[in-house]
Amino acid sequence: MNNFFYKKKKFILLEDLYKICNLSYKKNIKKKILDVNNIKEAKNSEITFLNSSNHLIDAMHSKALVCIVSKKFEKYLNKKIISLVSNQPEIDFYKVVNFFYPTSNIDDEKVLNLKKIKVLKKNISIGSNTIIDKTAEIGFGVKIGNNVIIKPYVKVGNNSVIGSNVILSNAFIGDNVIIKSGTLIGQTGFGFKYINKKRFNFPHIGKVIIENNCQIGSLCTIDRGTLSDTVVGEFTTIDNQVQIAHNVKIGNFCIIASQVGIAGSTIIGNNVLIGGQVGISHHLKIGNNVKIGGKSGIVSNIDDNQIVMGYPAKNLREFVRQNKK
Amino acid sequence: MNNFFYKKKKFILLEDLYKICNLSYKKNIKKKILDVNNIKEAKNSEITFLNSSNHLIDAMHSKALVCIVSKKFEKYLNKKIISLVSNQPEIDFYKVVNFFYPTSNIDDEKVLNLKKIKVLKKNISIGSNTIIDKTAEIGFGVKIGNNVIIKPYVKVGNNSVIGSNVILSNAFIGDNVIIKSGTLIGQTGFGFKYINKKRFNFPHIGKVIIENNCQIGSLCTIDRGTLSDTVVGEFTTIDNQVQIAHNVKIGNFCIIASQVGIAGSTIIGNNVLIGGQVGISHHLKIGNNVKIGGKSGIVSNIDDNQIVMGYPAKNLREFVRQNKK
Amino acid sequence: MNNFFYKKKKFILLEDLYKICNLSYKKNIKKKILDVNNIKEAKNSEITFLNSSNHLIDAMHSKALVCIVSKKFEKYLNKKIISLVSNQPEIDFYKVVNFFYPTSNIDDEKVLNLKKIKVLKKNISIGSNTIIDKTAEIGFGVKIGNNVIIKPYVKVGNNSVIGSNVILSNAFIGDNVIIKSGTLIGQTGFGFKYINKKRFNFPHIGKVIIENNCQIGSLCTIDRGTLSDTVVGEFTTIDNQVQIAHNVKIGNFCIIASQVGIAGSTIIGNNVLIGGQVGISHHLKIGNNVKIGGKSGIVSNIDDNQIVMGYPAKNLREFVRQNKK
Repeated sequence: MNNFFYKKKKFILLEDLYKICNLSYKKNIKKKILDVNNIKEAKNSEITFLNSSNHLIDAMHSKALVCIVSKKFEKYLNKKIISLVSNQPEIDFYKVVNFFYPTSNIDDEKVLNLKKIKVLKKNISIGSNTIIDKTAEIGFGVKIGNNVIIKPYVKVGNNSVIGSNVILSNAFIGDNVIIKSGTLIGQTGFGFKYINKKRFNFPHIGKVIIENNCQIGSLCTIDRGTLSDTVVGEFTTIDNQVQIAHNVKIGNFCIIASQVGIAGSTIIGNNVLIGGQVGISHHLKIGNNVKIGGKSGIVSNIDDNQIVMGYPAKNLREFVRQNKK
Repeated sequence: MNNFFYKKKKFILLEDLYKICNLSYKKNIKKKILDVNNIKEAKNSEITFLNSSNHLIDAMHSKALVCIVSKKFEKYLNKKIISLVSNQPEIDFYKVVNFFYPTSNIDDEKVLNLKKIKVLKKNISIGSNTIIDKTAEIGFGVKIGNNVIIKPYVKVGNNSVIGSNVILSNAFIGDNVIIKSGTLIGQTGFGFKYINKKRFNFPHIGKVIIENNCQIGSLCTIDRGTLSDTVVGEFTTIDNQVQIAHNVKIGNFCIIASQVGIAGSTIIGNNVLIGGQVGISHHLKIGNNVKIGGKSGIVSNIDDNQIVMGYPAKNLREFVRQNKK
Repeated sequence: MNNFFYKKKKFILLEDLYKICNLSYKKNIKKKILDVNNIKEAKNSEITFLNSSNHLIDAMHSKALVCIVSKKFEKYLNKKIISLVSNQPEIDFYKVVNFFYPTSNIDDEKVLNLKKIKVLKKNISIGSNTIIDKTAEIGFGVKIGNNVIIKPYVKVGNNSVIGSNVILSNAFIGDNVIIKSGTLIGQTGFGFKYINKKRFNFPHIGKVIIENNCQIGSLCTIDRGTLSDTVVGEFTTIDNQVQIAHNVKIGNFCIIASQVGIAGSTIIGNNVLIGGQVGISHHLKIGNNVKIGGKSGIVSNIDDNQIVMGYPAKNLREFVRQNKK
């Protein structure tokens, strides 16, 4: 996964998987598994999982070493892959991820090693009480407010402005980005399952990428991804108190007004305009140039160039017609 | 009330009530009132109030010494109780509460006496700039982030994680609780009345109880109770930017998505699932195992096991049927 | 504009306007422009703009020296005014504003010069890690929490309480005001336009005025105005997580529940009651004594004394009738 943010376990033996997720491989093969990955990108030293018909073609061509798979999808796997049948492939895979990346399912509050930044040399300004981990990279000309917390391995690009009380973790911030005060970027998302009357928190080994020239308002929360990244595209502008959940991808030049909430894994195109207090459900696809009226509730995909409003949202003309006196 | 968080006035004489709320007891009895309480639990040294037909049976059996009561309910009171008839029993009672607990109606911003915590001995870690009052109790293995404020008499149970920028006041936090960054727990709620062109803020002598194994997201606000506590039950999991008002009781194993708002005194059962941006009105009762679709507006009670959606919310099947194209 | 918060450029020559906004005045007149202003209040040394039929009468009587104006409105201008015709009068005017007030379109995160406050003399209390700029004015008896940031030229009136983690900039806070923890007041608002594939941020030379005896909840955002002020009237009470956009004016004795969002330039009367999670669109006028039910979406003006609910909001009786089972 090429993940900068974690100390990773070096490997696990195939035969030891039963210790983690109660799945064992009966044949007498010694194999070292070196990392986790999604089924499309997994290398032949990596473990992956399959539990959805959306990935059957990827499954046929996958180069993974091992795949945790539900019984009904096992037959679609590339025959070279060692398959481990499970009733809960996703959960079992997450357990393996948590083994490799042991702190990826919590917001680690360990004490930081403070960085000494050459403020003058790089033309950086930093306010009072601000804490920057020594492994973070801060670009030229960056302005950072007071009480800011920048956690390990975060990168902030050149000439960006980080408001006061901001917390950055597991995030790459581009150049010329403005993040207003009180916003939290890169925390674990709302991913968990109750199993046997306990909470099992999903790993979050993705990061947040805020691309160049974005502007993020105050008191927003942008959670990092589980297995992929959460992305805000270039020049997108976001108002105050917006919630962006894990794995969301937002395109370029979008405008997102105040108090919007976008649920997990939803993908939003370019030039999308989202009015205040809109809620967008999870795992949706919103096309390019879409306009969504204020306070709408979006529960299904929207094609390019549509203008919608309502709860549930419909074509704007239809919304207006239905609400005439 | 057995309240740890306040310095309480020791007593008030019955004859001096007129100084506080303009109610006087004409007979020549010297009585000391030692505390305030609700009508059900009041002891025979305490003052209470009655202004609702919901508590008539409690009124008959109440052991209170004094009760501030509206004219029409006076006849239901246990005859041993000294009754004080008022046009505004609740407000007059609140005035007495404010007398006994003089700072309970504001968020006191007095300067804290900092605690020295034996970090190594109790395996506690504490970030930079964090302020913990010397009367707070911090359990074994607790991790606390940066810029955290923990106010007097707060208790944090073992192995809990308190994110950065969190403020805790008037709260008991259980074991294995996770509170993410930027969340504020235990402040006064939105309770007040305009009287004679001034604001009269209600006392908030309740606390917030976060039970064991809860997880609370970032930038949430959970206000403390007025006369009772605000409670989040075991293993309940709450996402970012959620508002929970004073006196709300939430059961166990509930799942509450982002940007939900729950208004004052509402009671929510166990295993309740609440979608993003849902609003729930005040003084409602939501049953066990209820599922509420995203962005719904709840304005009436919901029985056990219902699935609802909409604004105002209705049965999910009905919502889908009405919104078919 | 009589603006305390900025270092202003002293003047610009009429002939140099083309450098800023590509508008030039061909005649051979040497004129110094000393400041920017709206068309009604502009003095005869100031520049203004006109691009709306709402201000034609003001245009006829305006004393401005120069006006940037769209072709179709030029004829309405007082003949003494030097007119500069533009295809985009508002944007060109904003460019001139940005010239006069060069940092007014960003939230400046420059390092503050800390103030030494005579705490005892003025009966002020200040928590830990709190940063107050030396140009800020703090009244008698003010209580300030921890981690607070008070930026240049802010005024806080007597006996006000400023909660922890609050950030105040470009704001005048009245007497006896309560601002709860985590609230941000006075930042730039959500005003910008994409021009030639770049973001042009509008100037925000207005301030926020919180009048006497207001109470603002936790984790609210109240943005400062662009060319006018954002105002919260006397005794108005606001709950947690409320968003108030730039230029909004709220009257006296209003009650605004949690998670409400009010979009830019909307004007709200006195004694208005706004339920939780209500959204109010921009540039609207809400009358006096209006009551708005929880979660309503307001997209048009509301007359005095109306009671409304719904999305879009309608008369409450109509809302109830339509939603009967």
